[in-house]
Amino acid sequence: MQNELTLKDIYLAQQRIAGLAERTPLLRSESLSRRWDCNVWLKLDNLQPTGAFKLRGAVNALLGLDKAQRERGVVTMSTGNFGRALAYAGQHLGIAVTVCISKLVPDNKVAALRESGAQVVIVGDTQDDADIEARRLQQEEGLAYISPFDDPLVIAGQGTCGLEIIQQQPQIDTVFAGLSGGGLIAGVGLAVKSINPHAEVIGVSMNQGAAMLESLAAGQPVQVQEVASLADSLGGGIGLDNAWTFAMTQRYMDRGYRVDEQQIARAMLHLFNHERLVVEGAAAVGIAAIEQHQIDLRGKQVALVISGQNLSNNSFAQACHLAGEPNYADL
Amino acid sequence: MQNELTLKDIYLAQQRIAGLAERTPLLRSESLSRRWDCNVWLKLDNLQPTGAFKLRGAVNALLGLDKAQRERGVVTMSTGNFGRALAYAGQHLGIAVTVCISKLVPDNKVAALRESGAQVVIVGDTQDDADIEARRLQQEEGLAYISPFDDPLVIAGQGTCGLEIIQQQPQIDTVFAGLSGGGLIAGVGLAVKSINPHAEVIGVSMNQGAAMLESLAAGQPVQVQEVASLADSLGGGIGLDNAWTFAMTQRYMDRGYRVDEQQIARAMLHLFNHERLVVEGAAAVGIAAIEQHQIDLRGKQVALVISGQNLSNNSFAQACHLAGEPNYADL
Repeated sequence: MQNELTLKDIYLAQQRIAGLAERTPLLRSESLSRRWDCNVWLKLDNLQPTGAFKLRGAVNALLGLDKAQRERGVVTMSTGNFGRALAYAGQHLGIAVTVCISKLVPDNKVAALRESGAQVVIVGDTQDDADIEARRLQQEEGLAYISPFDDPLVIAGQGTCGLEIIQQQPQIDTVFAGLSGGGLIAGVGLAVKSINPHAEVIGVSMNQGAAMLESLAAGQPVQVQEVASLADSLGGGIGLDNAWTFAMTQRYMDRGYRVDEQQIARAMLHLFNHERLVVEGAAAVGIAAIEQHQIDLRGKQVALVISGQNLSNNSFAQACHLAGEPNYADL
Repeated sequence: MQNELTLKDIYLAQQRIAGLAERTPLLRSESLSRRWDCNVWLKLDNLQPTGAFKLRGAVNALLGLDKAQRERGVVTMSTGNFGRALAYAGQHLGIAVTVCISKLVPDNKVAALRESGAQVVIVGDTQDDADIEARRLQQEEGLAYISPFDDPLVIAGQGTCGLEIIQQQPQIDTVFAGLSGGGLIAGVGLAVKSINPHAEVIGVSMNQGAAMLESLAAGQPVQVQEVASLADSLGGGIGLDNAWTFAMTQRYMDRGYRVDEQQIARAMLHLFNHERLVVEGAAAVGIAAIEQHQIDLRGKQVALVISGQNLSNNSFAQACHLAGEPNYADL
């Protein structure tokens, strides 16, 4: 692979991942279109077989390995969704997958990883700790290390989400996506901006521990403290040795926003009440940002990436509380 | 149209409705596949723009009108989802839609009808009362009457759901769908059995007010009493002058089951807990039947039609209660 990703890499990924990752629906939201006086489309990547967009990049990365690497197997670290996606893809492709995760990862995600046939190593309190262990396994056991975001094949895979959005609704001019390590925003941004340079690509993080936004502000990758959030999928650093997503986010993301926990909860409940979607906090941050920052979208054609639905019932209950929603079983 | 529907009519419908009704995803369910030791696929027709499969038949019926009929407008009766679908399709095609419904139809469905631009007439306590009013408008005001199920174009439209299932997973050998007026089972049965005569097509109704099952047992259409149910979309009679769906259900449905309210509730909560789907009781009756009647599916390739998600929060709360689920806001 060349040292800069292009739209062609995303087309190649689209061709490659077909059959293992889904082409997900882009569904018009009547409730949000009315609310914001524009056209809103929801990109339902929560409907990927592993419940999150991460499968796109995981499949593309595994299909990019040579024969010797496939046989030795791979290792990664992950807040859950990428590890789960890699495990699923590995199981379908016959490639051994080891996942290093921190103690912060919710139980339901750990169980899902194990069910998918991955070897799970739980180590330390942060994603960075998990990463150090993954690098050790790379060095000492010869496993191929796959970053959940800072990898060109992973980024190209995530970019297929953006490519599909434009293929499904070419008039889209504004795209919101969750911003964490930057794999999604880099890939989606590359796809969308390559096809329509006038489109706006907007990233959203939670208020605390917004590693990419802090790094962008500092002009270089910086470390941040991880804080528990409804949008736990957006946690983790971008790596001080970031090679791809920092520069690509600088280039392809127009603006970034931070959102409060309560706004995330309200956005989750909006999706429950009006679209019958039960999704992760990370999947609802676009709505949260538009509400909290009163972003004017009148007349726009807006796509929101609904990134995943791997939340525990506890998280959903917490969101109900925080949003001040009625207690369903008591109605 | 000839006096017998064929697979060709469903292919024609598929071509016709594209753009207004969606080709919905067929998603593998890991949880149900494991539980029943088979492969289970969920046909997510809850993701139609109007939240239910009914849009398929409504669009096909409206596109089958001649110019004069289009200008006079149409009238129908409906437990909600068909009326909503027809209103939506009428709005997009510039055809005036009047919907006659009974007082039993939940408020959220009435509101949705009005929001879609339909003229709503609420009359009587049963779908039959609503039907009498619709027929009067047909006679006295020249509106084209469209039955929500007993209409060849509607049936062919619903059949596209079955055609898509086989196109998406040709190995499917068992299909479960909700059984009410019979439009869905007739269309899906025609599609599936025309392509694979060995496939089994199974209809499921709620315990009380199962009009088609009663009629099949009696050898002719009979009237039944309507009873409130979590699967309210399956309520209503099949019409004593039934012209299409009774005979087609006799011919294309292999077996029918009845299910208890508690089993429906449990099935709804299974879909919430394991697939993050919030759907109508009618959409969960397939799962309920398999559980309640301990249907042996080992080694089968099973499709379940997830027919709609237009339920009120009250219905969802009622299902939580009945299934004995924890109270999410209290966790």
